[in-house]
Amino acid sequence: MVKEQIVTPWKVSCDEETGVDYDKIINKFGCTPIDTELINQIESVSQMEAHSLIKRKLVFAHRDLDKVISQKFYLYTGRGPSSESMHLGHAIPFVFTKYLQDAFNVPLVIQMTDDEKFLFTNKSFNDIRNFTLQNIKDILAFGLQEKTFIFSNFEYSHKFEEKTLKISKLINLHEAEKVFGFSSSSNIGQISFPPKQIAPCFPSSFPFLKNYKYCLIPAAIDQDPYFRLARDKAPLLGENKPATIYSKFMPSLKGIGKKMSASDPFSSIYLTDSAEDIKMKITRHAFSGGKQTLAEHRELGGNTSTDISYIYLSYIMQDDNALMKIKNSYESGEMLTSEIKNICIKEVQEFVLDYQIKRKEVDDEKVERYMSEREF
Amino acid sequence: MVKEQIVTPWKVSCDEETGVDYDKIINKFGCTPIDTELINQIESVSQMEAHSLIKRKLVFAHRDLDKVISQKFYLYTGRGPSSESMHLGHAIPFVFTKYLQDAFNVPLVIQMTDDEKFLFTNKSFNDIRNFTLQNIKDILAFGLQEKTFIFSNFEYSHKFEEKTLKISKLINLHEAEKVFGFSSSSNIGQISFPPKQIAPCFPSSFPFLKNYKYCLIPAAIDQDPYFRLARDKAPLLGENKPATIYSKFMPSLKGIGKKMSASDPFSSIYLTDSAEDIKMKITRHAFSGGKQTLAEHRELGGNTSTDISYIYLSYIMQDDNALMKIKNSYESGEMLTSEIKNICIKEVQEFVLDYQIKRKEVDDEKVERYMSEREF
Repeated sequence: MVKEQIVTPWKVSCDEETGVDYDKIINKFGCTPIDTELINQIESVSQMEAHSLIKRKLVFAHRDLDKVISQKFYLYTGRGPSSESMHLGHAIPFVFTKYLQDAFNVPLVIQMTDDEKFLFTNKSFNDIRNFTLQNIKDILAFGLQEKTFIFSNFEYSHKFEEKTLKISKLINLHEAEKVFGFSSSSNIGQISFPPKQIAPCFPSSFPFLKNYKYCLIPAAIDQDPYFRLARDKAPLLGENKPATIYSKFMPSLKGIGKKMSASDPFSSIYLTDSAEDIKMKITRHAFSGGKQTLAEHRELGGNTSTDISYIYLSYIMQDDNALMKIKNSYESGEMLTSEIKNICIKEVQEFVLDYQIKRKEVDDEKVERYMSEREF
Repeated sequence: MVKEQIVTPWKVSCDEETGVDYDKIINKFGCTPIDTELINQIESVSQMEAHSLIKRKLVFAHRDLDKVISQKFYLYTGRGPSSESMHLGHAIPFVFTKYLQDAFNVPLVIQMTDDEKFLFTNKSFNDIRNFTLQNIKDILAFGLQEKTFIFSNFEYSHKFEEKTLKISKLINLHEAEKVFGFSSSSNIGQISFPPKQIAPCFPSSFPFLKNYKYCLIPAAIDQDPYFRLARDKAPLLGENKPATIYSKFMPSLKGIGKKMSASDPFSSIYLTDSAEDIKMKITRHAFSGGKQTLAEHRELGGNTSTDISYIYLSYIMQDDNALMKIKNSYESGEMLTSEIKNICIKEVQEFVLDYQIKRKEVDDEKVERYMSEREF
């Protein structure tokens, strides 16, 4: 039986065999698929090849992206600091955000939703404060430009409280329940959170963005409820509607029907994993799209749409031709599961090692600089 | 038909003829009447006669007052800045709070709930900011001691946001709906407000109250839902339950079944009213408990339990004997409506004029001092 698909900012559940049905999400949420014409526009405005994540439809949907990329815009994204170390699924959105910042040479605002994590988990304040600081360093290791402002809600969000209150006043309980799935057992802190994530969609929330009129939000598709609501309320606030660009969820090592989870260390590759960890995790836990027997595999070939090694490669390999060769070889049965796993191990190891080197270079001074308000 | 009585922090409605049934409130809310034994205890600890508002049962109910007055406690009260000028009904709680501060020689914290006013009215941010500043001056004119800290939520409440979030996490939507009467048409800012009014019940919300263990809250009885909830959650937060002392609502000039309303200038005496305004308002609008004809009045006497002039006198006259004489004379039919109105006019004029003189003395420097954090 196909399980009913649920996608909210706090819960993603889908059929375990077939994974998330992204067409259904686009339809339900009412956002727009990214098509060839838009990819051409992106390349034309940025004068740069579109990122492989876009071309491979791992970044696949948007709202008004076509309208803002020729305007003066800033980027806004965020992260809920939930554990001491980020995993590969957390990394991809920042890799993509860095590409957008470089391609369009624009300021970037990053919200650490430590308050949200406190309200939605059983973690203590002190733990979350620590996660936040570690995660900020993790994020800065992606090489974001100097024109990036990163802030913690605990510390900074009162500075745009006027906007948060104005947004809160425009959302009634009925609407919040419908959009976010709140129920009578939700705590009232949870219910009051969305306006805090919505406020940074509007440049007037930040004194240093006064010369920017538009906002573009790179995010995973499960965050759309916030930004759909932000767009609904924008005219009532006298603000421009924010634009969005959405990525798919990087699946768990254990299969396409699962999302990576910080609570299961074998479901994901951490950015702190050693080369040995990575080898072990992919060898033992990466779901294979290969066939049961060698003979069957040689005859029928592997399934790249369920094979986690192939899917991970499609997230991190830059070289289109090399990836295409792997796909053809695996699907034809020429390449075996052990072989595609070895390629994946090597690529992930390289990605993580490269990251770890950059992570070591992030010092407190850099954190302080990026967390201070500056003119962009 | 007797109208169903509703008492929430945002709505008080009762039978227009008989006024608020306070016994019913005590019963429904579960607080305790102030009895003679407690009055004796108050006088014994403070070594001072109890305030006439207590003796006349205009301050009439409490929670744990008997437990905290012998302890080291601070006072906490507040005001929602809803209009440029405060009326007599707003003044009485501060007259009483000043008495408590002087009688027990304790620090006082005053919260200006400007955020609440923004969320529950159609007033603009700028208007409310202005009301707040004016109201702070209005409050300081009551002669509160130097050990008073007055703050605006817009400006200061982020400093105890950790406490606010912890409280928010302990209240689910079902409970908030039940306690405060929220519904699906409430905006989510309104639903998120109560923890902000609850947080200052706990001394750990303020760095300068670290030597205080208990909180006593003088407030109108309609604020009990906040403090009932504060007391419920206190053990989960590792805090002492706050104690409370509750006053009745000063009725509208127009009758005991009505609450003073800032939207009807003839329903109340403003602290900015001139002697002439006061005379006109009481003469024309103060509901009379006198009889229709002179003969009838002489025979049956006036009704002091519905006569607004008498009720206002019971709020502001200090002299018990003088008040008793008025009561006897009016109830016996000896004193006429015009006479009791004249006494009321004179007493209210004196109260307001005396207040206006003190109000003129409150300068920006005093506001700044009382709004700055200090050691108490």
